[in-house]
Amino acid sequence: MSLNEKTITSEIKFEGKIINVRVEDVELQNGKVGYREFVDHPGGVGIVAITSDNKILMVKQYRKAVEKELLEIPAGKLEKGEDPLVCGKRELEEETGYKAKEFVSLGYLYPSPGFANETTHLYLAWDLYKGKVNPDEDEFLDIFEISVEEIYSLIMKNEINDAKTIIGFFKAMEYIKNN
Amino acid sequence: MSLNEKTITSEIKFEGKIINVRVEDVELQNGKVGYREFVDHPGGVGIVAITSDNKILMVKQYRKAVEKELLEIPAGKLEKGEDPLVCGKRELEEETGYKAKEFVSLGYLYPSPGFANETTHLYLAWDLYKGKVNPDEDEFLDIFEISVEEIYSLIMKNEINDAKTIIGFFKAMEYIKNN
Repeated sequence: MSLNEKTITSEIKFEGKIINVRVEDVELQNGKVGYREFVDHPGGVGIVAITSDNKILMVKQYRKAVEKELLEIPAGKLEKGEDPLVCGKRELEEETGYKAKEFVSLGYLYPSPGFANETTHLYLAWDLYKGKVNPDEDEFLDIFEISVEEIYSLIMKNEINDAKTIIGFFKAMEYIKNN
Repeated sequence: MSLNEKTITSEIKFEGKIINVRVEDVELQNGKVGYREFVDHPGGVGIVAITSDNKILMVKQYRKAVEKELLEIPAGKLEKGEDPLVCGKRELEEETGYKAKEFVSLGYLYPSPGFANETTHLYLAWDLYKGKVNPDEDEFLDIFEISVEEIYSLIMKNEINDAKTIIGFFKAMEYIKNN
């Protein structure tokens, strides 16, 4: 029995500025034909940036997809072929006005591997210093410094719901505890 | 200044069996026009099911979108209008062959709120007993019982990357610690 699914046919159904949609017939592990829908996404980077007084830099922005303002860690999409850390440094400064002297990888996550190839890389950043705020022209966000305890409480009360933010927070806390 | 983005035009670009794609022109918070691409997804449910000897039920399956086998908590997509807990109970039994006497909500997450409205509900389940395995016809998975310590280690070593699995694990551990 094959451990993967072989592509039989693959057709691009939508080519957007950010995402593409592909539909595929695949050979399933029992030899039958299955139908799959996929979204191709460039992936992104999220940064858990900790201040010297143990607060985390957070951005609040309106997310039209879910029709809500969400509180998230600073983040951005990867340019084609871009190194995730380069992207993370850029997005941290553009969104919050801060740069960091220290970065460490917290690994990556697949937000929704059932249909999307999107990969989100996470970094922990500290030793912050002032850079220059410069958000994208279609990006409007408010910046907050929120204590570790308050973020924990917002996550457990289900008031922070963004996947990369929750994972970044928990992995950062474990990293700090273990190092 | 408006806190949201008003829809100016909205057009469905792809209607699939699972996802739809919409593109929109929206009024940004500075009054200018922005372009957005969205994926509409039915959402889903993930279950952190803990055995009496402190192991977690995990499923391994090939995820064509990321071209890898992934280790994940049991999960499934919501039917239209379905109660998430009903969906969670069904998916747990279909994928693992286990039912549970106790369920508690661990809230929900937005896997990728930058472009998708997908919402994933999470539950912690315990007091497990045997039901009947019955996976979807295009679903092939192996079931494992893995200790809490091993899951923690796999997450921190970046060997578990599925968002709902990582969030479900950490929120379940915190719930258990706090209750």
